[in-house]
Amino acid sequence: MTFNGADALVRVLVENGIDTCFSNPGTTEMHLVAALTRDAGIANHLCLFEGVATGAADGFARMSGRPAATLLHLGPGLANGLANLHNARKAASPVLNIVGEHALAHIAHNAPLTADIEGLARPVSKSVATLRDPGDIGPATRAMLADIQSGERGVGTLIMPNDVAWGDAAADNLPSVAIAPAAPPDDAAVAAAATALATPGAVLLLGAPHLTRRKQALALAIAAKTGARLLAETATARTSRGGGLPALTRLPFQIDAALETLKVARTAVLAGARAPVAFFAYPGRPSALLPAACRTLALCPPEADVEAALEALAARLEVAPAEPVATALPTIPDGQITPAALGAAVANALPEGAIVADESVTNGAALYPACAAAPAHDWINNRGGSIGYSLPLAVGAAAACPDRPVLAIVGDGSAAYTLQALWTMARAGMNVTVVVLSNRRYRILANEMSKIGAGKPDARSDPLMSLDNPPIGWTDLARGFGVAGARAATAPELHRAIRDAIASPGPHLIEAAM
Amino acid sequence: MTFNGADALVRVLVENGIDTCFSNPGTTEMHLVAALTRDAGIANHLCLFEGVATGAADGFARMSGRPAATLLHLGPGLANGLANLHNARKAASPVLNIVGEHALAHIAHNAPLTADIEGLARPVSKSVATLRDPGDIGPATRAMLADIQSGERGVGTLIMPNDVAWGDAAADNLPSVAIAPAAPPDDAAVAAAATALATPGAVLLLGAPHLTRRKQALALAIAAKTGARLLAETATARTSRGGGLPALTRLPFQIDAALETLKVARTAVLAGARAPVAFFAYPGRPSALLPAACRTLALCPPEADVEAALEALAARLEVAPAEPVATALPTIPDGQITPAALGAAVANALPEGAIVADESVTNGAALYPACAAAPAHDWINNRGGSIGYSLPLAVGAAAACPDRPVLAIVGDGSAAYTLQALWTMARAGMNVTVVVLSNRRYRILANEMSKIGAGKPDARSDPLMSLDNPPIGWTDLARGFGVAGARAATAPELHRAIRDAIASPGPHLIEAAM
Repeated sequence: MTFNGADALVRVLVENGIDTCFSNPGTTEMHLVAALTRDAGIANHLCLFEGVATGAADGFARMSGRPAATLLHLGPGLANGLANLHNARKAASPVLNIVGEHALAHIAHNAPLTADIEGLARPVSKSVATLRDPGDIGPATRAMLADIQSGERGVGTLIMPNDVAWGDAAADNLPSVAIAPAAPPDDAAVAAAATALATPGAVLLLGAPHLTRRKQALALAIAAKTGARLLAETATARTSRGGGLPALTRLPFQIDAALETLKVARTAVLAGARAPVAFFAYPGRPSALLPAACRTLALCPPEADVEAALEALAARLEVAPAEPVATALPTIPDGQITPAALGAAVANALPEGAIVADESVTNGAALYPACAAAPAHDWINNRGGSIGYSLPLAVGAAAACPDRPVLAIVGDGSAAYTLQALWTMARAGMNVTVVVLSNRRYRILANEMSKIGAGKPDARSDPLMSLDNPPIGWTDLARGFGVAGARAATAPELHRAIRDAIASPGPHLIEAAM
Repeated sequence: MTFNGADALVRVLVENGIDTCFSNPGTTEMHLVAALTRDAGIANHLCLFEGVATGAADGFARMSGRPAATLLHLGPGLANGLANLHNARKAASPVLNIVGEHALAHIAHNAPLTADIEGLARPVSKSVATLRDPGDIGPATRAMLADIQSGERGVGTLIMPNDVAWGDAAADNLPSVAIAPAAPPDDAAVAAAATALATPGAVLLLGAPHLTRRKQALALAIAAKTGARLLAETATARTSRGGGLPALTRLPFQIDAALETLKVARTAVLAGARAPVAFFAYPGRPSALLPAACRTLALCPPEADVEAALEALAARLEVAPAEPVATALPTIPDGQITPAALGAAVANALPEGAIVADESVTNGAALYPACAAAPAHDWINNRGGSIGYSLPLAVGAAAACPDRPVLAIVGDGSAAYTLQALWTMARAGMNVTVVVLSNRRYRILANEMSKIGAGKPDARSDPLMSLDNPPIGWTDLARGFGVAGARAATAPELHRAIRDAIASPGPHLIEAAM
């Protein structure tokens, strides 16, 4: 049996720690399918839609810190994965897309599937390359794997023409690529931050892909010592929390609430965060959320070793990380599932080690604060704003952490974009619990319409925001994709349903009537 | 009430005959939602996923000859629509995408949803423009509408920053844009074609977006008179057929069958067709399907007035269009739904005026030939090869032709990409019948794997091609989106189910066990 380009690529992947691939292949990827499934070092997950594959790779990266591969079919296959790659890019998640392409000589013939794959990839990718010869495979793949894991991590898109996949190749057997270490603390920046945080109106803004427990405990102590206000970015790629870690306040999503929170800021110290900006522009509101007179200085950029910088700052200030505190879980009220009741129901059901993919949109206001009192868990937010991220993300989180329960809490509108993820969960028997918040509206749009100055929804515009005609039957959809479903109409029912779902094997979907 | 940029854009659309919009809006499109729903001249269809909106616009264009608009939310919203825009581009369907964008000054702040929208649009668009001032709206929109409907028609992507939408604007009240007429017949090309077709080994290859009945009747007569072999392109954007029109043979999709069909060709006359190429490249097979020695000449390019060119050719050859012939419908066999039985079941159920969106993939071999004997109907094929086109396309065809029954015949793998289209069908009570060919495999991949030289599927690679774990419950999925579902296990059951579905109002889904 000859060793071809596809085999050579898979060899490089395995040698560099890639052990998981989320796939939706076609004819041009069949050599890759053969090579990927022949190598026992790769776990392959078939997805019914490419946005599931790319969102899963994002989730895998957030929970493992390592890239997974995706396998996508030419330009249109990549196109279907772009929205969740946008989210991965904004979350600085390393993802390696392997995209099949026509044999090189075939491209000029403009066959039906011919498209500008590099052009499609560029807006979401840190690195794009088309392999033109089997000899390129080793060097190009290694260079891309180093690039997407060094500095600000990101998405790499490796395009493999079919004749490069089927051509004879040789394994190069080179050592694993070197990942550039994150930048160490800068003494001058640490000293400046220490001084600035002790001034009136100081704010310490925390960010970076993974807000570890240690980072938060250090930041809490730093804020307590200096008197600075501590805030986390509105959406973080991953926050480890609960289990007694004091609750972190996030900068609100709502523009007026965010401006109100920051209006007294005189100095902002950014620890892995970016200077905060409004999610959207609103008439008469600024895009930059810090007051114009506020001074901004960076303790460290997001791609630096943020934890080490916080350690250095804490050492300079002579403070120890904050200690755990005991926090009471909220009481689950009787009756309908209000946003507050949702928070209580979820917080009381979360087991130790849970991973929560939060796409709760308008119903999630109380969810994050309430769960601070739960056992230790990880919280995942959407950094890119492209809707339909949480179900695919849950697939990837479950693949990365098969022993941890995963919850996806998602608005009904959002869940509809990538519901095919349910099937991949069922296929692998993943312990994922999907809670669909069924208010039968794009309620965020009704909220935003007047805020953005477009008037109030009326009888004419309402049909472009309502999902009640016909109502979506989420338990039917779940059953169709092989996932057990249940409905909950009250907060106690929801709490019990989540607990039962987490306790029984395989995926479950709970439609929560809001 | 002030007249803003969104109002001005909608005014230009209505003045230029745009009366239908397929939408999945977000915050940055709320002024457009208000303007689109305030204007009684626009029919708005909400879609749960952007690929439904873009595929529907393609279907609308194929059946009406006119562009519909789509309304999409920033870069990720456009990204989700790209795969079906790829298909629209390859089918030369005019489509106008309206994509919201952040207010101009907000873009530089790199908010979560900021993306290179123009970069995403370019690979699928004939024309891309970002409006930078309310004064641009009239000229830019008119120029784009003229461009996408002139010459080779295509996709236009108009990007509207939010402050351009909410800024004060004035209606320009200019006349409708001029669409360039299609090129008339070229006398020299007609004369050369007439001579060439009478030579031994001549082939007349028919193409162009819409193969009208008249074009086919003319081509049939021309072929009969000259002795040339008549073939249609493998996939046409729309073919009007049945009702006694003699059956047209298409060039086969399978590479070896296509090469066999064309191996005796000495001269190929292209009437609106392109020189045929292989769908994929295969080791040891050519990309160009005509023999190297075959001479090629164009009667007219696809964007010309192909019907007039055929009229001129027929006049020169002194032939009248072929007359209708009586053809017997195939008998529906008892027992399981084989490909031949599928063809018979559908052909016998098709009513006059039906529109068939064909995404039958491996099970469709007998479908197209069998339906030649049905009453007059339209047949729609995928010109771009991006999967998941037929359910969205059916939405658009039904919106364009509300009085005609629409059938989407689709493999189970293909149907899973854009199943959210079912909800839009239910919302509007569209008379669409979806037949899902449930073989629980990506069978095309199993067929292609060895042909492309990647070996046979084995126990390791099979899980990346099989859809049986878990089996997809199509009637459950249909119910979840508000569509009545049924299962058919035999050809007579399938025939009855299709007939019943077409005869009762609203959409239906039939899962055909293959």
